[in-house]
Amino acid sequence: MQTLKVSLAERSYPIHIGVNLLSRADLLQPHLKNKKAVVVTNVTVAPLYLDRLMATLGVLGVDALPVILLDGERYKTWETLNQIFDALLDAHCERSTTLIALGGGVIGDMGGFAASCYQRGMPFIQVPTTLLSQVDSSVGGKTAINHPLGKNMIGAFYQPQLVLADISTLDTLPDRELRAGLAEVIKYGLIRDPEFFDWLEANIQLLLARDRQALAYAVQRSCANKADVVAADERETGERALLNLGHTFGHAIETGMGYGEWLHGEAISAGTLIAMDLSCRIGLVTVDDVFRVKKLFINAGLPVRGPQMPAERYLELMRHDKKVQDGKLRLVLMKGIGEAIVSDVASEREILASISACCT
Amino acid sequence: MQTLKVSLAERSYPIHIGVNLLSRADLLQPHLKNKKAVVVTNVTVAPLYLDRLMATLGVLGVDALPVILLDGERYKTWETLNQIFDALLDAHCERSTTLIALGGGVIGDMGGFAASCYQRGMPFIQVPTTLLSQVDSSVGGKTAINHPLGKNMIGAFYQPQLVLADISTLDTLPDRELRAGLAEVIKYGLIRDPEFFDWLEANIQLLLARDRQALAYAVQRSCANKADVVAADERETGERALLNLGHTFGHAIETGMGYGEWLHGEAISAGTLIAMDLSCRIGLVTVDDVFRVKKLFINAGLPVRGPQMPAERYLELMRHDKKVQDGKLRLVLMKGIGEAIVSDVASEREILASISACCT
Repeated sequence: MQTLKVSLAERSYPIHIGVNLLSRADLLQPHLKNKKAVVVTNVTVAPLYLDRLMATLGVLGVDALPVILLDGERYKTWETLNQIFDALLDAHCERSTTLIALGGGVIGDMGGFAASCYQRGMPFIQVPTTLLSQVDSSVGGKTAINHPLGKNMIGAFYQPQLVLADISTLDTLPDRELRAGLAEVIKYGLIRDPEFFDWLEANIQLLLARDRQALAYAVQRSCANKADVVAADERETGERALLNLGHTFGHAIETGMGYGEWLHGEAISAGTLIAMDLSCRIGLVTVDDVFRVKKLFINAGLPVRGPQMPAERYLELMRHDKKVQDGKLRLVLMKGIGEAIVSDVASEREILASISACCT
Repeated sequence: MQTLKVSLAERSYPIHIGVNLLSRADLLQPHLKNKKAVVVTNVTVAPLYLDRLMATLGVLGVDALPVILLDGERYKTWETLNQIFDALLDAHCERSTTLIALGGGVIGDMGGFAASCYQRGMPFIQVPTTLLSQVDSSVGGKTAINHPLGKNMIGAFYQPQLVLADISTLDTLPDRELRAGLAEVIKYGLIRDPEFFDWLEANIQLLLARDRQALAYAVQRSCANKADVVAADERETGERALLNLGHTFGHAIETGMGYGEWLHGEAISAGTLIAMDLSCRIGLVTVDDVFRVKKLFINAGLPVRGPQMPAERYLELMRHDKKVQDGKLRLVLMKGIGEAIVSDVASEREILASISACCT
């Protein structure tokens, strides 16, 4: 097992990464304030891992209530969130009850947002069970639900007490979701860790073959990058925005196609390639850089072209992006493998050209 | 004009109290991040004060979008909150746009919660227009919506940039609402400011007659008390809970009778008298203390008996209170005029007895 730390003064917390962590009562115990918990999960994850986690909580004498939601990005809504609140209130949960999110990014985002709002804040533990949530969404305290007009538009910065990334849960992850998770892994290499990018180029097949050692390394290195960035800029006033490489385009794809049609990681993959094209178009990276990045995404089995939507529709959706400032789009662009910047220099015409060039 | 400060390190902010402050562009200007704002208000307040505030924003060149909601506690729901989000997204509001809440406690609570969630947090200004919101709810960062099972169950701690308490807006406040506001004013005297309690006994008729100087003094002294408590305990891990005198009983009244039937201040008045009765019953205060407090609430024109609900129903509703710990009710009780404590010593039988004794 590896342990990393997200350093945020009194809101600091550990990330444990390893195998069979769901059974480790000793890891959960220090982070439970009392003997009551709620486990928020979904209909896909519950049959696989809920019993295991409940047994571990049972060992600690914790009275845990499961809340089982429908599965998928299309359910990341207020209606589903309200099911959590109803369950919490029906069970007389207190503000010291711990909410444990067991599942992927949707469960973590909704569980975390529910925890941040319930009685104005209850303790919260992330137990991510997908590659994407283990390397990205469970770390750093971004929680949210979607709005019909924009992804993750309603939410909170709310840090967990603990992230428990049990690599064993990746055994049951569908191939498509494993690949989607790799998009966020590659992102860290691209924006700030060129050595890791090299490693990914060399080892992508091992990851796709679910080699445990390779997966553990990828999760640990991704989390180390994320923890660094979050510690330096918790509320995204600067550097943290770089973690959104490909996300402005990607969110437009997810919202425009209907939440859940494209997995988040798939949209980020296509979005990153649009960002690369745009970075090349305005002279920040070379054509060789673009090819190199594209090759890695292709080797990871990820889509490198966006879906067919009019470029103007992309732009319209992108105008809801959280990085928009004084009406101006700010995009994460690349300056080379391992270096990203936030920039508003690209013109609307250039952005439209890159979208048109990179979408089916 | 008087200015107080809520001291919360980088989240500190001023409270300005005085007449005709809605027209003071100089007070708003330092707290607006850019030239875009949203004014959240309701159908009652908009015809009275919206134009005045919009004109002031106009002087500053601020492009302000009004969002006008229905009026009343029964609308403090997710559905209404969503109207704010829809308006913010339709107007392409950014995370640097300022949300200004113009109205009473319901508008402030919902506006603040919307601001805390929209794009994970946008700047927020409180412009309270009722006595209750000027002396209590606009200060300290508690925001929330109601849930059918409990009042203020879903919310956030989210501090405003500024509180602008324009005493002139009290001119149009209905008598019933003025009286309701006095319940929270009296609370400060009771829990921590015995001199102020004496002053209120002597000056309650002046306040009911809307004497401006008396009102300004009551608002300023209440806010000073609130600012002290919030600065010492922002997230209610200790002393701040004392501000909830009468609230556990009062919230049960509001939820049990249907939100809006009893005004918040009315429910707090009746709830405070139940808390006094209970404090007397377990030997913390004298019968004379109880009479003295009751007399002030009566003189303020406030209800001193709760509505007819079975005592067990009160208790059931109270079990959702945010102060419940390990299944045990914790209540704010009185130890004398000017001193309150949080206590779990009262037995269920004693609590039921006080409810029965103090409700119609």
